[in-house]
Amino acid sequence: MKKLINIPNDVVDEMIDGYVKAHPKLVRKLNENKRSIVIASETRENKVGVLIGGGSGHEPAFMGYVGKGMADGVAVGNIFASPPPDPIVAATKAIDKGNGVVYIYGNYAGDLMNFGMAAELAELEEDIDIEFVVVNDDVASAPNNEKEKRRGIAGEFFVTKVAGAAAEKGYSLKEVAEVARQTNNVTRTMGVGLSPCYLPQTNEPSFTLENNEMEIGLGHHGEPGVEKGELQEADRVADRLVQDILNDITISKGNKVAVLVNGLGSTTKMELYIVFRRVEQILAEKSIEIYRSYVGNYSTSLEMGGCSVTLTKLDDELTELIDAEANCPMYAQL
Amino acid sequence: MKKLINIPNDVVDEMIDGYVKAHPKLVRKLNENKRSIVIASETRENKVGVLIGGGSGHEPAFMGYVGKGMADGVAVGNIFASPPPDPIVAATKAIDKGNGVVYIYGNYAGDLMNFGMAAELAELEEDIDIEFVVVNDDVASAPNNEKEKRRGIAGEFFVTKVAGAAAEKGYSLKEVAEVARQTNNVTRTMGVGLSPCYLPQTNEPSFTLENNEMEIGLGHHGEPGVEKGELQEADRVADRLVQDILNDITISKGNKVAVLVNGLGSTTKMELYIVFRRVEQILAEKSIEIYRSYVGNYSTSLEMGGCSVTLTKLDDELTELIDAEANCPMYAQL
Repeated sequence: MKKLINIPNDVVDEMIDGYVKAHPKLVRKLNENKRSIVIASETRENKVGVLIGGGSGHEPAFMGYVGKGMADGVAVGNIFASPPPDPIVAATKAIDKGNGVVYIYGNYAGDLMNFGMAAELAELEEDIDIEFVVVNDDVASAPNNEKEKRRGIAGEFFVTKVAGAAAEKGYSLKEVAEVARQTNNVTRTMGVGLSPCYLPQTNEPSFTLENNEMEIGLGHHGEPGVEKGELQEADRVADRLVQDILNDITISKGNKVAVLVNGLGSTTKMELYIVFRRVEQILAEKSIEIYRSYVGNYSTSLEMGGCSVTLTKLDDELTELIDAEANCPMYAQL
Repeated sequence: MKKLINIPNDVVDEMIDGYVKAHPKLVRKLNENKRSIVIASETRENKVGVLIGGGSGHEPAFMGYVGKGMADGVAVGNIFASPPPDPIVAATKAIDKGNGVVYIYGNYAGDLMNFGMAAELAELEEDIDIEFVVVNDDVASAPNNEKEKRRGIAGEFFVTKVAGAAAEKGYSLKEVAEVARQTNNVTRTMGVGLSPCYLPQTNEPSFTLENNEMEIGLGHHGEPGVEKGELQEADRVADRLVQDILNDITISKGNKVAVLVNGLGSTTKMELYIVFRRVEQILAEKSIEIYRSYVGNYSTSLEMGGCSVTLTKLDDELTELIDAEANCPMYAQL
């Protein structure tokens, strides 16, 4: 796989350099740690801080989600690897204004350990209160009765959006964490992989599939899915993804949802809109209202081919928070 | 190339279906023509209309640029093919409020012919005044003394942004066209191709390159570039692209520019930010101020690999118009 990079080991730091240079009015890198990025302005006094983080390679997740009404900061790990505690602690100290910080991250062993250690350090060193929100929206990664084993994928976008809006509206630390957890509870994602990505350091494919094969439920780092089979028409793929979600969570007639059709990297917007078209048809047939739609690359796996569908069931509170104004480099103003 | 599609001949219509269903508050399809998309609300009385268009396969260009402060409408062609006159005429009639319509499109034979014919029909049938703005920002596609032969590529984003803002501010038909042409005059793009795209109907690659080869100046539809050679480090590629631009237009110390590092489809945001990092270094060394930066997929060629760099030299008027508020599905609110 040909890549526009310099030295493979420098890709993350160079990406961050370019990122903060490209969006100086929105974000800045901390002097204390080159893997900590926070909003350009100071976090507002009396506002709860929202901190996200995870491995690189999922851009625009997670650093693209930093901004007003979204996250206050992000800790950036190596490609597909959790950030160590240091950048998490540095960002925590930078965004805490005495009201505590909510950590939002995916349900992966490395993230659980490192965010946990960072919280202990932040509490020990500066008496900062931390709440944890662990995202586990990936239906394919474990059965319904073992939800605590499920991984976090594209649904983290909605959880971050809600938490950021809640913090901006003046929710307390526990309230922000609570509504973020509630968002995770009503969010489900199912994905399909068509082609692998290649890590810059090794240039090896993250998985292998035959020329006309797809894999349902493939993980964001190439973790095995639930079923390999012949590539089907987009409508049949969408049918499967939505059905797996609706088998897992009760969303029925009259309910309202936010929908995200997310590209994994190299899948075109044309394809994503074709998938969305079918998702809309299925939900319309069931009289489920799509309140807001998002179609594009929100959480990728480098240049992996494929997509995921995320549904978040909205109540009045989540609707208001999803609607709240926000701005971040992912959506830099025109 | 595996694709998430249904029947290959239906991809454009199905994409449009999904698109208008995904963004109903922002855009709508005309009943008169299924390839005409306009803003959801009516174009404001006394505002000049801005109409864009071109082949599909460049998403989010061009339909992602329709919205308040951007274009009022778009005519959508087949993949890599100009829209015929009909959808152009239908959109023209829908967005004209008696103040005329500016057509913005790339410098391709099909577009020149079809937008020209559409203008004649619109003038004949409903006495609508039309102005043409032909974008030709691609430095690689012809030498400096034959600029009229150059193709339009990613720079069309800036031309559309400026025209949309000017129309919103109440500029007259001739004034909108003039400032859009002025934007085109100070906009230059250079691209590099790494890997081809595959048309859904044929599944054939748009061009071929060796395993470790890149092509400088490759066109958005696979038109031959100016030089093939071994893939170089991102910094050297950026050096080359920026140098070719600065050899073509005088941008010097103290000047202000807008920069777009555009992905062609399958190139990761990580790589685009690494390229931007070097572009920023080069311009900083020359004391050229980056006023605004855009990094991402603004004008693609399906899943082509590679990127382009666009510089637009800003005066006070263009700065104000680039800064003006805008909203469109490409930047649907969070």
